[in-house]
Amino acid sequence: MTAVFQFQEWLTLHSARVEAALENLLDPVSTNPGRLHQAMRYAAQGGGKRIRPLLVYAAGALGDAKPEILDAAATAIECIHAYSLVHDDLPCMDDDDLRRGRPTVHKAFDEATALLVGDALQTRAFEILANANCASDLKLHMISALAAASGSRGMAGGQAIDLESVGKKLDLAGLKQMHAMKTGALLSCAVELGGIAAQLDPGQMQCLEQYSRALGLAFQIVDDVLDATSDSQTLGKTAGKDAANDKPTYVTLMGLDYAQSQAKQLQEEAITSLAGFGSKGQALENLALLVVSRAK
Amino acid sequence: MTAVFQFQEWLTLHSARVEAALENLLDPVSTNPGRLHQAMRYAAQGGGKRIRPLLVYAAGALGDAKPEILDAAATAIECIHAYSLVHDDLPCMDDDDLRRGRPTVHKAFDEATALLVGDALQTRAFEILANANCASDLKLHMISALAAASGSRGMAGGQAIDLESVGKKLDLAGLKQMHAMKTGALLSCAVELGGIAAQLDPGQMQCLEQYSRALGLAFQIVDDVLDATSDSQTLGKTAGKDAANDKPTYVTLMGLDYAQSQAKQLQEEAITSLAGFGSKGQALENLALLVVSRAK
Repeated sequence: MTAVFQFQEWLTLHSARVEAALENLLDPVSTNPGRLHQAMRYAAQGGGKRIRPLLVYAAGALGDAKPEILDAAATAIECIHAYSLVHDDLPCMDDDDLRRGRPTVHKAFDEATALLVGDALQTRAFEILANANCASDLKLHMISALAAASGSRGMAGGQAIDLESVGKKLDLAGLKQMHAMKTGALLSCAVELGGIAAQLDPGQMQCLEQYSRALGLAFQIVDDVLDATSDSQTLGKTAGKDAANDKPTYVTLMGLDYAQSQAKQLQEEAITSLAGFGSKGQALENLALLVVSRAK
Repeated sequence: MTAVFQFQEWLTLHSARVEAALENLLDPVSTNPGRLHQAMRYAAQGGGKRIRPLLVYAAGALGDAKPEILDAAATAIECIHAYSLVHDDLPCMDDDDLRRGRPTVHKAFDEATALLVGDALQTRAFEILANANCASDLKLHMISALAAASGSRGMAGGQAIDLESVGKKLDLAGLKQMHAMKTGALLSCAVELGGIAAQLDPGQMQCLEQYSRALGLAFQIVDDVLDATSDSQTLGKTAGKDAANDKPTYVTLMGLDYAQSQAKQLQEEAITSLAGFGSKGQALENLALLVVSRAK
């Protein structure tokens, strides 16, 4: 009889692993300029759900990826995510004072420093991958995937579309495309990086893509549901922002009940796409459950 | 008898080459989101001296680097340079309205777009290198060098030190260290990328380092001299900014005459370090002359 997969144990272990990897791979505050490195650590090490790095480890478990490659990929993608949050919170974007229950970087430091923190975290992400201890082709594949997911045809492009959509009322197809770029691309990339590190075959990578597409959409629908139904203290960031900014969301376009049932259905779709991986897919399966049932 | 090296011809040819490479390697405006891609092109294709890409081609000529690798490296480093200018011009940094004789990106578009333009240009730089048509090890070497030069221990770090120095009066050693990171690192990196692409040996790379160190310092001294002696129309950017911001410069710390003679001496040092390359170093030699004698 195989041992029962203990997701809570996996989660505790790998959450600690993410924090250790960030601690090791970010420059220490003792490196000049100290204040910038301190602010970079404030941005990247201030908690958060760590969904993307956890997805890297979970997808890496589908093959036999070397742990240190997964550490590099997990840290790199979290650096990109952290940079996007720091820039997103700036006054010229969302102008947010609160993130992960603490003052945003431009509030805790200053705007110019926050700008540089985001810039330098992005650079560090690519540097970490370029210097990872693994085969050159694997590293380049990961760098290329991360760049495609985070640049103007991915995350940054999605943010640009989001900016243009204020007051314009996107329809459901437009909303989906915007979120597929703004949030979906980086979530998918996390799964992809794990799959690349695990050296999966093209058929397996295709199953992962199906998983990621469903998960990414579910993630955003749940985000919109939480923004509409939760409070700032629970979320650790400003709640009700979408309504306040008159932004279309899955909740405003679908209604709350339908949005919630869609998230559940997408969760099922994500899990179904893992069928071929057998018990090796259990961490990814549980992460899909976690994403849909989360409270923040 | 060898043909006389015609620098003006070389310059015309390679300046056109830079523009063509940018045109080819930046996303077209027809790619969604169009406004972001348009703004990225506005930022990167608005002229400028193109010193960094020209240094890539000139250093590449020391060996037999493949032209398309040099195109990728030249475009990547110009994308990083352009991103740094866009972010540097933002209201929370230098708050500049004029760049290369035209409105800055946040003036021509808006602040949020300028933020994303810088972010996405940085991503594109690494993506271009990762997807370049050459050996994997060469690409990784270039990505690693570019990240080190532009991140928190390089350009972005130098900008952070610059921010902290306002009102604090750096001494000459502090000013040199700040500029070595803020401007010097990326200029050196341009030369290094050319050298990597040309597959030079370690001894040759060391000569290039000497060249770059002298050139980088000369470049910044001349920048300070021009800021103190020229006007905004000639420079294509706001002149007299340093004095207005009460920032220490080579001119305020050394005096104008000494600064000018130092720049000349550094130019000589740069040229001397090329001795071992014979006639292959002529483009680099002429670029050192150009940097010191430029009027903007």
